[in-house]
Amino acid sequence: MTQTLSDRLNAYVQVARDLNVDAVALVPGPNFTRAVIHPFMSHERPFLMVIPANSAPAALVPNLELRSWDLVGFDGSVFDWRDQDGYDAAFAALVAHLGIKSLAVEGQIMRVFVHHALKQAQPDLRIVDGEAAISGLRVIKTDDDIKALKAAIEISERALERTLDSVRIGQTEKEIEQALIQALFAEGAEDLAFNPIVAAGDGSARPHAKARLDYAVKAGDPLLFDFGARKHGFCADITRTVFLEHATDEGRDVYDTVLRANLIGHAVTRAGVTAHEIDDAVIGVLEASPFGDRIRTKTGHGLGRDVHEAPYIMRGNHTVLEAGTVFTNEPGLYQIDNFGVRIEDDVLVTEDGCVSLTTFPTDLLVLKC
Amino acid sequence: MTQTLSDRLNAYVQVARDLNVDAVALVPGPNFTRAVIHPFMSHERPFLMVIPANSAPAALVPNLELRSWDLVGFDGSVFDWRDQDGYDAAFAALVAHLGIKSLAVEGQIMRVFVHHALKQAQPDLRIVDGEAAISGLRVIKTDDDIKALKAAIEISERALERTLDSVRIGQTEKEIEQALIQALFAEGAEDLAFNPIVAAGDGSARPHAKARLDYAVKAGDPLLFDFGARKHGFCADITRTVFLEHATDEGRDVYDTVLRANLIGHAVTRAGVTAHEIDDAVIGVLEASPFGDRIRTKTGHGLGRDVHEAPYIMRGNHTVLEAGTVFTNEPGLYQIDNFGVRIEDDVLVTEDGCVSLTTFPTDLLVLKC
Repeated sequence: MTQTLSDRLNAYVQVARDLNVDAVALVPGPNFTRAVIHPFMSHERPFLMVIPANSAPAALVPNLELRSWDLVGFDGSVFDWRDQDGYDAAFAALVAHLGIKSLAVEGQIMRVFVHHALKQAQPDLRIVDGEAAISGLRVIKTDDDIKALKAAIEISERALERTLDSVRIGQTEKEIEQALIQALFAEGAEDLAFNPIVAAGDGSARPHAKARLDYAVKAGDPLLFDFGARKHGFCADITRTVFLEHATDEGRDVYDTVLRANLIGHAVTRAGVTAHEIDDAVIGVLEASPFGDRIRTKTGHGLGRDVHEAPYIMRGNHTVLEAGTVFTNEPGLYQIDNFGVRIEDDVLVTEDGCVSLTTFPTDLLVLKC
Repeated sequence: MTQTLSDRLNAYVQVARDLNVDAVALVPGPNFTRAVIHPFMSHERPFLMVIPANSAPAALVPNLELRSWDLVGFDGSVFDWRDQDGYDAAFAALVAHLGIKSLAVEGQIMRVFVHHALKQAQPDLRIVDGEAAISGLRVIKTDDDIKALKAAIEISERALERTLDSVRIGQTEKEIEQALIQALFAEGAEDLAFNPIVAAGDGSARPHAKARLDYAVKAGDPLLFDFGARKHGFCADITRTVFLEHATDEGRDVYDTVLRANLIGHAVTRAGVTAHEIDDAVIGVLEASPFGDRIRTKTGHGLGRDVHEAPYIMRGNHTVLEAGTVFTNEPGLYQIDNFGVRIEDDVLVTEDGCVSLTTFPTDLLVLKC
């Protein structure tokens, strides 16, 4: 049964009621796209949709987006504004029309200038951070969402295979990164889910390394790829660490430890466990190893329209996972000035276990190149 | 003379004094990257640098970024936090250490959750939107900035040439978009400056159109490309509209009008004119034509590390442009259900005129394909 725009907006009516506020506001980003399906860009122009608990929705739309907005089929009031006039009058008209006292916003997405414009239009408006509840509607994936995630992952895995075939000793990290990016688009990505990480040798020890122009890969290097395609608006996020030509004993031991942590993560996942329990099991494996001082990150994060979204798989997060949740299982060990290893799968929670949407092998790969 | 980190941070000390606040805060984004050079990602984790007017800078850094942060050479206090502990204690320690009463933030970049965390740590902290002054430091480009912009533009123009060679009647907008993206990376882009717009026929009438999977280009169509590479952290932003096989008289008239508006924009630009004056001249040409009811946008926007940045070239913006400013000159005419034309150059303001960094011809091009 396909949801209509009205069905999708009604979900935010419920969020407003649950949060005990008069309305929910959405700005362009993953929740906005979930609601209206059409993607809109968020630049310097405020663009806002407000869904009140007890009246019809309204929107504040930059005039030059009006024609695209028409395609959405939104039947609430629209307050548009032109660049040359500024947006203060549109905000004033919007809040006068709404007559609300409190508003839940997406704290991780809305920027401060929109917050300020709302407060200026209505100084007594109580603005609360409703991020968890609003983005929470994206945690359980629909069948279409999962289809899109699978498509993004398949593209990414084919691109990795193609890239590994092309790696040669002496290439720079940057050259390998460029080959990966071209392979992602050649395989059908509509965008990068994020700027890929391609890091070799000591670069692999930094979880968010940037590919270096001046580092040529050499035999014995670990080579870490953390990357993903975006397809139909959904993101893949995959990490594999390979070794070039040969692996040291230390490299093998660290890899084996990370892989055991990743596998225990798969083993303990099923509907009903908490994010805390998964992280505890995964990080527990790393802590029990001789490499406990190399732990720098939690197990992972939710994955969907946004590459980092709820639920965050970490100790202290006692959220119970439900079937249909997708998250990354990405344990790693990192020693600065030495090397790092990370293995990351995208995992779909099911009633009685989980399915790894990533199927690229995780056995230690020594690449002959 | 190369600026040091300390020089670059001192510029924000002056901004704090000009704004009459105790400190300036930067979050990952174009200003943060300008300050520390190394790029950092901004996801769900708060990451903040505070530069007080009268004491040493301080930073709040996610623990997993600490090793990358070490490369910055920052010598102020650092308050780090781990995912499993949350960030409230780090914010409390940061504000206790700073002892400030007012803070200017980047309203277009900082998200509400960071604003809320600051207010929670110090409810009496006065947070003002210092966007214009903070991002204002990026308006005048350095020689290195201009070199990077030129590199991004050259890549983009070669990619357009390659894409135009490959366009065939019957391809979908999406296929042409994919060819353009692959050409951008093949020519050396490190990223897309933004998701390209490839819009034909009636799609060209929407300024922010999304490439359609189900629209095949046909003879007589206008075909609009709005796109750019990112290189060395800087963005190109170029639009060209071509006609496939033949152009109607209306198409030629509209194109000629837009081109005259674009050319007058170049002609009136020099250090000392205002953004208002440029927009007035450009839009004036469109208004004086028979197509005045097809105007939907202002002349353009500043261009640099961000694809849309100050100065905004529009009526009412009486900012005086100085030499070294780079902006887009992108007049357009759009009629819904009919077609649109836009021509966009990237323009460097000089003391006695301007230089178009884009050199791809703007004469009407009827593409035989």
